Amino acid sequence: MNKSIEVRNPRTGKYDYVIIPPPPKLLAQQCNRLRRAQFRWQHLGVEGRIAALQEWKQALLSARDQLIEALVNDTGRLSVSELEIDSFLHSIDRWCKLAPDLLQESAKNTSIPFIALKQTATPYPLVGVISPWNFPLLLSTIDTIPALLAGCAVIVKPSEIAPRFVAPLINTLNAVPNLRDVLAFVEGAGDTGYALIQHVDLVCFTGSIATGRKVAEAAAKNFIPAFVELGGKDPAIVLETANLELATSAILWGAVVNTGQSCLSIERIYVAESILDKFVEQLVLKAQRLKLAHPTVESGEIGPIIAEKQAAIISDHLLDAVEKGAVIHCGGKMEELGGGWWCRPTVLTQVNHEMKVMTEETFGPIMPVMAFSTVEEAIKLANDSIYGLSAAVFAGSEESALEVAQQIDAGAISINDAALTAIMHEGEKNAFKFSGLGGSRMGAAGIKRFIRKKAILIKTNTTDDPWWFDNE
Amino acid sequence: MNKSIEVRNPRTGKYDYVIIPPPPKLLAQQCNRLRRAQFRWQHLGVEGRIAALQEWKQALLSARDQLIEALVNDTGRLSVSELEIDSFLHSIDRWCKLAPDLLQESAKNTSIPFIALKQTATPYPLVGVISPWNFPLLLSTIDTIPALLAGCAVIVKPSEIAPRFVAPLINTLNAVPNLRDVLAFVEGAGDTGYALIQHVDLVCFTGSIATGRKVAEAAAKNFIPAFVELGGKDPAIVLETANLELATSAILWGAVVNTGQSCLSIERIYVAESILDKFVEQLVLKAQRLKLAHPTVESGEIGPIIAEKQAAIISDHLLDAVEKGAVIHCGGKMEELGGGWWCRPTVLTQVNHEMKVMTEETFGPIMPVMAFSTVEEAIKLANDSIYGLSAAVFAGSEESALEVAQQIDAGAISINDAALTAIMHEGEKNAFKFSGLGGSRMGAAGIKRFIRKKAILIKTNTTDDPWWFDNE
Repeated sequence: MNKSIEVRNPRTGKYDYVIIPPPPKLLAQQCNRLRRAQFRWQHLGVEGRIAALQEWKQALLSARDQLIEALVNDTGRLSVSELEIDSFLHSIDRWCKLAPDLLQESAKNTSIPFIALKQTATPYPLVGVISPWNFPLLLSTIDTIPALLAGCAVIVKPSEIAPRFVAPLINTLNAVPNLRDVLAFVEGAGDTGYALIQHVDLVCFTGSIATGRKVAEAAAKNFIPAFVELGGKDPAIVLETANLELATSAILWGAVVNTGQSCLSIERIYVAESILDKFVEQLVLKAQRLKLAHPTVESGEIGPIIAEKQAAIISDHLLDAVEKGAVIHCGGKMEELGGGWWCRPTVLTQVNHEMKVMTEETFGPIMPVMAFSTVEEAIKLANDSIYGLSAAVFAGSEESALEVAQQIDAGAISINDAALTAIMHEGEKNAFKFSGLGGSRMGAAGIKRFIRKKAILIKTNTTDDPWWFDNE
Repeated sequence: MNKSIEVRNPRTGKYDYVIIPPPPKLLAQQCNRLRRAQFRWQHLGVEGRIAALQEWKQALLSARDQLIEALVNDTGRLSVSELEIDSFLHSIDRWCKLAPDLLQESAKNTSIPFIALKQTATPYPLVGVISPWNFPLLLSTIDTIPALLAGCAVIVKPSEIAPRFVAPLINTLNAVPNLRDVLAFVEGAGDTGYALIQHVDLVCFTGSIATGRKVAEAAAKNFIPAFVELGGKDPAIVLETANLELATSAILWGAVVNTGQSCLSIERIYVAESILDKFVEQLVLKAQRLKLAHPTVESGEIGPIIAEKQAAIISDHLLDAVEKGAVIHCGGKMEELGGGWWCRPTVLTQVNHEMKVMTEETFGPIMPVMAFSTVEEAIKLANDSIYGLSAAVFAGSEESALEVAQQIDAGAISINDAALTAIMHEGEKNAFKFSGLGGSRMGAAGIKRFIRKKAILIKTNTTDDPWWFDNE
């Protein structure tokens, strides 16, 4: 397990970075250290933990440039890297503001006159976070921040495909000794992630269905809770009454931001027959205005495909679609530029559910558009998927959009916009079908997942014994 | 799988009842039928479902005598059977009262000016419930009632050790056609339970750690949530200041009610050194007043050991303890009377954590008492267990009891009483360590486990596009 791993640069194709996974013994020791330190962290109280996270935030702000540089090397794109850092910093503030209320103990009388209830909470001592390469910083911290505020120690294993941000991130921890003792990052691939599950009390995983299921099984075997956030094949439904200008802009953004490398990307577009041509025309026009971020990261909006294996999947989906009759309106192929893999925003029509591009997660800037004749058909098509992460509905009235949204099997549904869960984390949502397992990462549940609720039941009247044996 | 299973009568030792597990195909068909009927049940709305459950309650009241007779044959004891039915009926009323609020949809503005949030809920279509033999009726319905009210269909597989109550229970469903279509009971052993997990969308299990872990693993493999409620080795801590009269009565009840066959039985008693002798004296005196429910069910409070394999475990724990130096003050052996296995309330001293009776779940009317010299030692002993279900603390002041309770690793802690979660289900609690996995069966979470939260995010201002690509 302590063999080094070479890391590919998505812009140059060169293997220009190395990580060294910890030997199993070292990982076990590190987890033990974190677990020991957790006791003090928990007993700092939420205000003490908030203070530590705010100190960290200052250190992160000072290291912003180094973090962005590392993220650009990890992912090959700039503006989304800035977005990642800003969202991360925002989430620190957001959770710091919410945590005191959400972790509040409560005391109340119950429906039984002689019993009072005190509700307290105890954090899981050590939380493991296994995160993916598409938003390396954001997705390695999205569960980490609430877990820390809940009083847990956290060990994070980011993806071995985009690990460069870890070194500058660890540096920032040196400024916050309280936090440094209870937050660790460990580098490595799947075997390190698997080893990590053996040492933690709860695991959060973000990634593929195949690995997510393995994580859930390993967690069950170890008898620890698993929260797995997996893939999506998010549909957008555009009703006849929709504002096309808005729908095409929002869907384009939702489909190709981060080059489509997002679990909540729009990957299927169902459009009312009567407006199909107009919709496609506008979407193609807007798609063609977007440029590749090549030769420099500032050259355009569309970064390289980060993972080489994903480039192969996108190619395969495109080829499969065309073979089965799909028509390409723009983009449509993988290009090798300067050693990296690139794909321009691609609009497809004449697609159907026999094609991989309509059934499997593509994770690229691909927009397959399919016509529907009735709203019932649109809903049926949207639900014809093993995924159920999120969706979008566009309509002239909120009411008709809501009626459709209610019938879609997905945890989050944006109305007249796409992928709103990317910017608004207040709604609780559970994944449907194979898109995930465990409680909501968003809303109040996001922090409550990390505590065990304890009910203290107090007999307030010590003279009445109405429910013991009669004959004493 | 469709071989019949003979069922032993705990009072006579005779195999006087037979169940026939469904062949796999029939089980699959039944699950499909339930799943199809669920749609209508869900769309009845919570008020419609409450009406159906209230109709059922009337039918259950009419069948009370038949249900009690069956439960007495299943378990060999009477008063706890009456308690089971009454608690079951009470839980129907309780959840009917709570459900409308807890399932309420909500709509609100968010911190982002142009996004409104509508929070809705969708039930898991088909819930599987696998329940144990110690409280056959109560534990097969404790999760079933909230699941039904949430809008799920439910299929229950009760234990093959105490299945006689199922026939009269199914009869009561005939009076409520709406409910009959979405609630089924299936008879069988572990293999039927395992088969059931392959057909449901969520599984609730109550039983042993070994089986619970298998259930969790099978659920993870099938990618469905599992809520497993397992064993306990609940400690009671009696501080020097405790009211001994109250402590001995409550602990006796908590340890020997249902002949100790309860996950939340008091199974370890830690008493302050200075009051040990007095405590033991009182406890033994009270224990000796309890009588076996033999020759008739009305003869006393202590029923037979329901499962023959459990009688062997209790014997083994007693033998092991005595071999290692424990002293028996009353009870202390398994007796065969009329073909059944019986054990009188047993008080042991001179016990330690090398003995099975202090570390493994005994599930019998056994009260091992151990002295402690400091409160810290008592807490350490209480936490020295792979279990963390519940606990009890007795002290002269609520404050000192609470201080101890806060430090005990268990989900529910009774203060100056024992096993209060048996009668008060309002507090949310999570099992610690190997006592369970998944959300709380009690409190509001009890019903929320059965719904998937859906966040509908509505863009309310369709003119501003502050976060899409700049260059459109």
